[in-house]
Amino acid sequence: MKCESETVQLLENRVSIRSYSDERVSDETLEAALRAGCRAPTSSNIQAYSVVVVRDAERKQKLAALTGNQEHVAAAPVFLAVCADLSRIARASEIHDRSTEGLGTMEMGLTAVVDASLAGMAIMLAAESIGLGCVMIGGVRNLPLETAECLGLPPRAFAVFGMCLGWPKARPAQKPRFPVEGVVHAERYDASGCDRVLLRYDGMLSDHYDAQNRPTDRASWTRRVADDFSLPRRTHLRESLRTLGLDFS
Amino acid sequence: MKCESETVQLLENRVSIRSYSDERVSDETLEAALRAGCRAPTSSNIQAYSVVVVRDAERKQKLAALTGNQEHVAAAPVFLAVCADLSRIARASEIHDRSTEGLGTMEMGLTAVVDASLAGMAIMLAAESIGLGCVMIGGVRNLPLETAECLGLPPRAFAVFGMCLGWPKARPAQKPRFPVEGVVHAERYDASGCDRVLLRYDGMLSDHYDAQNRPTDRASWTRRVADDFSLPRRTHLRESLRTLGLDFS
Repeated sequence: MKCESETVQLLENRVSIRSYSDERVSDETLEAALRAGCRAPTSSNIQAYSVVVVRDAERKQKLAALTGNQEHVAAAPVFLAVCADLSRIARASEIHDRSTEGLGTMEMGLTAVVDASLAGMAIMLAAESIGLGCVMIGGVRNLPLETAECLGLPPRAFAVFGMCLGWPKARPAQKPRFPVEGVVHAERYDASGCDRVLLRYDGMLSDHYDAQNRPTDRASWTRRVADDFSLPRRTHLRESLRTLGLDFS
Repeated sequence: MKCESETVQLLENRVSIRSYSDERVSDETLEAALRAGCRAPTSSNIQAYSVVVVRDAERKQKLAALTGNQEHVAAAPVFLAVCADLSRIARASEIHDRSTEGLGTMEMGLTAVVDASLAGMAIMLAAESIGLGCVMIGGVRNLPLETAECLGLPPRAFAVFGMCLGWPKARPAQKPRFPVEGVVHAERYDASGCDRVLLRYDGMLSDHYDAQNRPTDRASWTRRVADDFSLPRRTHLRESLRTLGLDFS
């Protein structure tokens, strides 16, 4: 049975790319990735997402600041804002004189976030398959209102994540992930192996940083996430999303 | 400039497949797709997702009932439950005696949902690239508690969507999506073209159903979504997720 393909290879070898050559990303190339990615599955065909393509240097600079001074956001030839977007459904409801009450739920919020994520992932893979390097940027959730303002988003839309794209300059070593048996379970979730997987992964990451000659006190995954998430982050997010017209109730 | 690739072709031609041949999906084939898909990007390497692979006929039958009596869930050789999963981070916090207070936010909930969605999309594309047919199943959010129970999920995990996989028997015609200019915006979101896009898309869908000889009163996208979302759906979701230990606050 065939278990190999270009797509499998692409995924097996993929790394996030944060440094780009000066070569322009043509409209044709970008459109090929966007057009392909927009064929990702969507919940009941609602297509509850939008993408804003940013090439303007000043706007990228502004977005770099909003996303926590990430230099690659300004340096990338192209930045995509991948947005959950219920505004088209709201407009359809207006056109047909129906209530928009159903849009203010956790279900609709999550569905739009999933739709955006599926499209974003598909766009990224399509882009990588034609040689572009990419990295996703969660920092667009730092300041959702300012980011929405910068992108001119309509009510009921917000940027779920960003994406930098460009022709790769440097290709970092691939960081190990959890062993597959740590995230994939047969028939029922088996939590009994969790500690063993965490311990093994801490070792794998530590070996990885050693091999890179990059000693770091953040090599232990368990220690790093325990530290990073002991205090709530982006605590304004729920309120900001409500202000933007997305009420996860 | 190269704009073509197997991955781009795969996406351009993809359709959801809901009918499968009797041929078994080998462990080797499935593992190739899972292994590749688990290389999807993840926010700050937190890998906040898990996948439960269901092959057992009785469990698939149960999941078919829970997801709204979708026959293909029972009929598919393999069903995947793609879960947002903060339980490993919670365990790491316990191990290092840190607070888990930071896990109860909208930010962490959404991050886990995005991580699960990226992995699910990548698994699906990897599977499709080796010839499998797939369809995502949002119906796992119908009864989140019962679904979590059926899958044995730990606290702080829930099934974001499911996925049926098998060797395709029938391949439906591809349904048109919004014209790309309806979802992709340059520099800033331009809502001024929205009505034109919606009108055009209603026509495209209507033509599609006509060409299929499938007259339907749900051919108008605007009318269908206006009707479907005029009343809130899955209104228990937020409370159910809280019960499962995911508090989008």
